[in-house]
Amino acid sequence: MQRNSIKVSMAVVRRLPKYYRYLGELIQNDILRISSKELGKIMGLTASQIRQDLNCFGGFGQQGYGYNVVELQKEIGNILGLNKTYNCVIVGAGNLGQAITNYEGFRREGFILKAMFDVNPRLIGNTIRDIKIHDIMELGEYVKENQIEIGIICVPKEFSQKVADTLVENNIKAIWNFAPADVNVPESIVIENVAISESLYTLTYLMNEDSLNL
Amino acid sequence: MQRNSIKVSMAVVRRLPKYYRYLGELIQNDILRISSKELGKIMGLTASQIRQDLNCFGGFGQQGYGYNVVELQKEIGNILGLNKTYNCVIVGAGNLGQAITNYEGFRREGFILKAMFDVNPRLIGNTIRDIKIHDIMELGEYVKENQIEIGIICVPKEFSQKVADTLVENNIKAIWNFAPADVNVPESIVIENVAISESLYTLTYLMNEDSLNL
Repeated sequence: MQRNSIKVSMAVVRRLPKYYRYLGELIQNDILRISSKELGKIMGLTASQIRQDLNCFGGFGQQGYGYNVVELQKEIGNILGLNKTYNCVIVGAGNLGQAITNYEGFRREGFILKAMFDVNPRLIGNTIRDIKIHDIMELGEYVKENQIEIGIICVPKEFSQKVADTLVENNIKAIWNFAPADVNVPESIVIENVAISESLYTLTYLMNEDSLNL
Repeated sequence: MQRNSIKVSMAVVRRLPKYYRYLGELIQNDILRISSKELGKIMGLTASQIRQDLNCFGGFGQQGYGYNVVELQKEIGNILGLNKTYNCVIVGAGNLGQAITNYEGFRREGFILKAMFDVNPRLIGNTIRDIKIHDIMELGEYVKENQIEIGIICVPKEFSQKVADTLVENNIKAIWNFAPADVNVPESIVIENVAISESLYTLTYLMNEDSLNL
């Protein structure tokens, strides 16, 4: 919620990665042109919502011809900043940190994982997929010296704010936080708090919706 | 997107877990009454949006008195179905599956993890936090015989649809899918596809927003 200037509504912004993903699946299935109506059907949106969303960025369709899927995905990728590369570190080399290291597509999309950090002496010095696990005491210096832009927090929630503070003090640009508690950072830092329980609770809501008296 | 009857908009539904989480944090900080304006400030919403959201479920505030935080969190928990328990299995006992097993709060909120499943002979027979890892060949029978309601998919994306099909054939009610590709299920099954890359791409969008010509 911390943003310097609100240009496009966050609801639209949060749909962009979905467009990117669904268009990628269309390309994999050799579907190279699609109307806003057809795209809407796949994504569970109306055609007019899709046109409105894309018009925020100048629009990309040609009346009556639909969208060129490859071009549209590339344009949206550019808008999402996926045409650049980002130096990243993971703090917390437990199961979740390791799962993210192994996440397919991470490297392909330009996220360069430079190092992992942990407090556990049994993990420090090991490598996972060629990524070395460093002592967490070295985090601040490493971030500053290696121009790290994105810090990925995978530590227990008791330690997440302290890790975020260290990252911020050493000029991190963005934090992707998986600890199950929001961390607070200055407004100039981009933060995404990933709360996986929110998705689980949406699931249980939908399981029970029919029994609610609405 | 597959729902039998749309009663409350998904945008509102997806905010409910956020209310639940933020109200929980207020309780931890001993804040027991809050106005819609103050709650909105914390959550990045307007007071009127909060009142509108909660009015979908009958409203819970008293004009001029704000919300009773404990009661409101409990009510929202009930709406989210968190007053019940759910038998769950995790399919895929790699890093991600293990991270979810270790996720704090999972048990506390009524999610009873009964078993894990994997193809890897080195994992089968082991236990993680007292949860036994079974051969994936036993998945269908286990789900049917143990009244499993939620299947959590943590396998690589090549296998996710096949796992989903097995779960559906054996009367699963809901699927929480972490594989980075949507799975398709009949409309009667509740599905949440967790695409963690969407959160990462939102992050990179926000990192680059100032340089977009909007």
